[in-house]
This record gives sequence, structure tokens and C-alpha cells, in this order.
Amino acid sequence: MQSRGFALVISAPSGTGKSTITKAVLEAESRCVQSVSATTRKPRAGEVDGKDYFFVSVDEFERKKRDGELIEWAEFAGNFYGTPRAFIEKAKAHGDIAVLDIDIQGAAQIRRTMPDAVTIFVAPPSLAALEQRLRARKTETEEAIARRLARVPSELAAAKYYDYLVWNDRVENAVQAILEVIRVESRRISRMDLEGDWLPKV
Amino acid sequence: MQSRGFALVISAPSGTGKSTITKAVLEAESRCVQSVSATTRKPRAGEVDGKDYFFVSVDEFERKKRDGELIEWAEFAGNFYGTPRAFIEKAKAHGDIAVLDIDIQGAAQIRRTMPDAVTIFVAPPSLAALEQRLRARKTETEEAIARRLARVPSELAAAKYYDYLVWNDRVENAVQAILEVIRVESRRISRMDLEGDWLPKV
Repeated sequence: MQSRGFALVISAPSGTGKSTITKAVLEAESRCVQSVSATTRKPRAGEVDGKDYFFVSVDEFERKKRDGELIEWAEFAGNFYGTPRAFIEKAKAHGDIAVLDIDIQGAAQIRRTMPDAVTIFVAPPSLAALEQRLRARKTETEEAIARRLARVPSELAAAKYYDYLVWNDRVENAVQAILEVIRVESRRISRMDLEGDWLPKV
Repeated sequence: MQSRGFALVISAPSGTGKSTITKAVLEAESRCVQSVSATTRKPRAGEVDGKDYFFVSVDEFERKKRDGELIEWAEFAGNFYGTPRAFIEKAKAHGDIAVLDIDIQGAAQIRRTMPDAVTIFVAPPSLAALEQRLRARKTETEEAIARRLARVPSELAAAKYYDYLVWNDRVENAVQAILEVIRVESRRISRMDLEGDWLPKV
């Protein structure tokens, strides 16, 4: 049965291991494609337009926003970032799953702009484990870690708006749980065309 | 994370193998409990009240219907059969999954009376396979088989109102697919209580 694809939004408190998990899901499931963001940031060495990002001017970004071409957008460090709807819709039409590794605010926008997106909240096993992981990275100052930890309560408060909860007690478990969500969501009849004689004759 | 249970409705065109599949799902997943129907039919030898059926009088059945205690009901061969809401709600509160092996008409009623029920349509691999299975049973007359086959188009037309499609190409595949739906639906955040400090501290 041919089935339309969908957008899969994955969010988690920072330090939960979302990037590692998302990467593993993309490698394990061939129907998954990583969503490519539009940005006004200048390309860094080695970055490819249309693969890493769609690099656009501020004027072009503003026009996309105005014309509803972005399902979510945000500003970080003076640059704009947004998710183009066209990329996602093309993937869906192909039966693919567009994976969006995105923060709480972006996910909230997508629930409004693309209500049929499937949303997953990945949770660390505990607050203590989350703090431990942030410190184990050894890439951030105490102040940066404290800032991340201060954001956790509001991130956890947003979990109730997601479709599914996946625990990251072990990366393999979280990846398998997400692959299972993908398989089950692919059985959803609302994404199939069951009109007329849909059952094969022989 | 403690999660409420749900009602799992399984329907299929007759001859698809729904009873075999439902039995295997109930055996494989300990949180699954088979829904017990109320009926005005007299108990047969060996049938236990409250286990095989809740045996009730016609008056009692009519009262249950009137008071909204049945999430679906139907008449077969002069007897009434219905699914008591109380049994299902008790299972849900315990975190259990109440499994309902039910026909298209019953499922349509449940979508109205219990909108959070999860509904699965099991499809045979093809029309030819379905006819072959009906004949292989050798328990029915040609006329009975013809009557069953005549109902198939309207049964297939109802599939679009279900949540998930599961193909019964092989019983084991269908059972695994349904167990996967159960695991993923158990991750659904709308059935959890994620208010307050829901993440374990340690």
C-alpha cells in the first residue's frame, strides 16, 4: 500500500543525546531524510548549499517568512534559521520521512504550521544523568552548563505537547524506539489512499 | 512513566484470520485483556458469567443501553450483544489494553462512544486469498461463503476510518505488527501525566 511520508520532529533537553540519536536513526532507516534549513549565516569552509543549508540573503529569508514558506524559524547569534516547507512536502510526497532535529520553540511552531507532523520528545533517564552528561562533554564552561540546566524545567514542561515519549537510557534503546514509531506511523491509514478497490485482486 | 491503558479495536473482513491473530496478541502481551461482552443469550455448557460473557436479561440489557453503559451493541439471531464501558475503563485505569475483536459496525460505534480507542484494520493479502481461506475452512455452505464475500466491498470501504492498517500475509507478521502498535501507542504522551517534576531526579 503506497503511503505518504511525514515530518518527524525530534526534541530533547540539551545534553540528552538528541544529535547522536537522530544521526543513528537517519543511518538505520533508508526512508529518512534530514531536513535542510535555510539560513542567512554565511557558508563555512566545506559547507554545501542545498545539502548543509540553503544559504539565503536576509531579504530572501524575510520574503520566505512572509510567504509562509517556512514551517518554523528562529534567530541565533544574529543569524536567521528556518525550515522550508517545500523540502518537507517533497519528501512526504515521495513517501519519505523528513527528520527535524529541533528545539522546543521550533516544535511548537511546527505543531501549528504542519499539524500532521509526528513529534517525539526524547528524555534523559534522570536530571542527575543529564547534568553528568553535560559535564562529561568538557567543552563548556560551568556558566554555560548552568545556563543549559536552568532551561531544563521549561523544556520538560513542553513535553506534554508532543506525541510520543522516548527515554534515552541507552542510545540503542532510544534509536530502536524511534524506528518503531516510524514503522507504526507508516501504517497510519490517514496517510494512505484506501478509496475504491484498494485490496489487490490476486 | 506510568501510562493509562487504552481500548484496542481489531476488525477485519470475515475470513482474514482476525480471531487467530487476536488470540496470539492476547497471549504475547501480558498487558492485553480480552474485553468481555454483555449478552442476552443463555449460557452454553461450560460458559462462565463474567469470563465468557456477562449474561443479562433483556430488561437489564435495555437499561444498560439507555444509561450509556455500552460502547457498542448489536443483535445477532435474536440475541443482544454489547461491550460494557465499565470493563474497558477499569482496564485503562490499570494501564492495561482492552482488546476488542469487533466488526465494522461495532467499531464505528466505538469511534463515537470512545474516541481515544486505537483501531486496527487487518487486511488479507488479496481478494483471491480471502476467498481461498473461506473455502479452506470447509465448515460453510457455498451460499454462506457467497454471503460473506458479498459483504467484503463494504467492509473494505470502512477501512479508511481506522487508525492503522495491518496486512495478514502471515499470521506471525500481523501479530508482530499489532504488538508494535501496542508498544508505540504506550509511548503516547496524551496518556501520561507529565505535569510538574515528572523527570526522576536521580
